[in-house]
Amino acid sequence: MIITVTLNAALDITYGMTSVAMGDTNRVARVLERPGGKGLNVARVLHTLGEPVLACGLLGGGTGEAVRAQLTLAGIDAAFTPIEGESRRTVVLAEPDRTTLLNEPGPRVTADEWQSFLADFHRLTATAGVVVLSGSLPPGVPVNAYETLAVACRRAGAGVILDADGEPLRHGLAGRPDIVKPNAGELFRLGLPAEAVRRAGATAVVVSRGRDGLLAHTPHGSWTATPPAITGNPTGAGDALVAALACGLAHDWSWPDRLRHGAALSAAAVRAEVAGAFEPATYRALLPQIRLQPL
Amino acid sequence: MIITVTLNAALDITYGMTSVAMGDTNRVARVLERPGGKGLNVARVLHTLGEPVLACGLLGGGTGEAVRAQLTLAGIDAAFTPIEGESRRTVVLAEPDRTTLLNEPGPRVTADEWQSFLADFHRLTATAGVVVLSGSLPPGVPVNAYETLAVACRRAGAGVILDADGEPLRHGLAGRPDIVKPNAGELFRLGLPAEAVRRAGATAVVVSRGRDGLLAHTPHGSWTATPPAITGNPTGAGDALVAALACGLAHDWSWPDRLRHGAALSAAAVRAEVAGAFEPATYRALLPQIRLQPL
Repeated sequence: MIITVTLNAALDITYGMTSVAMGDTNRVARVLERPGGKGLNVARVLHTLGEPVLACGLLGGGTGEAVRAQLTLAGIDAAFTPIEGESRRTVVLAEPDRTTLLNEPGPRVTADEWQSFLADFHRLTATAGVVVLSGSLPPGVPVNAYETLAVACRRAGAGVILDADGEPLRHGLAGRPDIVKPNAGELFRLGLPAEAVRRAGATAVVVSRGRDGLLAHTPHGSWTATPPAITGNPTGAGDALVAALACGLAHDWSWPDRLRHGAALSAAAVRAEVAGAFEPATYRALLPQIRLQPL
Repeated sequence: MIITVTLNAALDITYGMTSVAMGDTNRVARVLERPGGKGLNVARVLHTLGEPVLACGLLGGGTGEAVRAQLTLAGIDAAFTPIEGESRRTVVLAEPDRTTLLNEPGPRVTADEWQSFLADFHRLTATAGVVVLSGSLPPGVPVNAYETLAVACRRAGAGVILDADGEPLRHGLAGRPDIVKPNAGELFRLGLPAEAVRRAGATAVVVSRGRDGLLAHTPHGSWTATPPAITGNPTGAGDALVAALACGLAHDWSWPDRLRHGAALSAAAVRAEVAGAFEPATYRALLPQIRLQPL
């Protein structure tokens, strides 16, 4: 069982529009609602892959209710800890040739709510093979939250994948996660070269570099994995990669296999219109096209 | 008692942002939620004026629940007919020097739901002095809805103000409303000169022309009413004008008074940050500055 943690879960509202006239009144042609937040994108990809997954984290208010309803509809098992605050929305303006994200800040989480989440988390991780820690922390959650959760996972014997940014990522490394998945921007903000992320606490590091593909440093070697040229919506491509890495960790795949699947699933996600979605046929077609090179 | 009808009620979500980078990820600095839709803006202005008002219309889904909660919070009496569909949201991107509206299309209303609204409406109008019919019709509501409602009001002895666009406005004129309030664009789309709107069915017509102020043709004469130069957010200025006209109709003010109050309240609304809001002090200060000219 893979558990995904989404502390700043969201309701993703995508507005399909031929164009947005700034400073004017625009009619939205098509509205698409989805559970959002990186951890929920990972959960959705794993569910589509047929991999047993449980989504947990924090949800509150009417937006939280809408997210729960959408997860039920999608058939994704969820065990979220309730909070008083209103979960955030993210509005995506999807024009044919550009995508604009508007991210609400998220609710304030109280110390009691955080303790209550920790109690739920300890219970859930007792049966987890792999735990995925993804995304931003809402106000009120301690900045070292991912360190705390990673330590709890190691005690419970579960593997840990961390996908975060800034201070939550830096602190999370101290929890010694099995795999850290920064993108180029996150790595730059961390101020470390890729190999140094391993010395800072991670067993392996996989850097997603957009169309340049993946760069991995692991205990079994270092590789790049490059997909064919793909155009589309890059939102959620990193989450698809994390889902593949979670599968690989759960089933003890070789690193070359993890990277091939990760690069292919990520490229298939770019082709899909919304984050957390992909066409299995596209994924299968891309798999043999990934170029893996040892460093 | 003034009743406002909002058939396509909305949850207005305003995102306060220093700037929006299109094609990129943006953090929203400030989120403000309000009941939206023109009829609810009118209701809010009337409530602030201390005028007894009841808001009715159609509401459904989680967004509908959020609108109800906001109305309760604002102390506005409401008697909405429930529908199965999800009420729409309107997202307002408020940058310091421009305002962009993103309007969702609204829920589909079934024939049964429309009949159920009509039954509620007949009951409510028995005690109404003035009924305000404002805004767009959601899919499924007959295009001649405003004609049907205006005729029902006249039978019940209530005055009627109509503020609509396109075909709902054209059909609504056949219901012979007391006042029609198009803006310049709506009048243009109607394809009639202002005076001809009276011949098409309205007893009086008041055209809102932005910074050029009001143009009115009434049974008691024709006037222009011009406010001093004002800068701000014009969203909701027309709704403030309609609120003043509803007050004037309810209390049988002279036309010059209706237009003076309408122009001043409308200008005060431009000064306020969000639709449906105004500063009473600004309104009072603007009142003697309105220039009224007979035509």
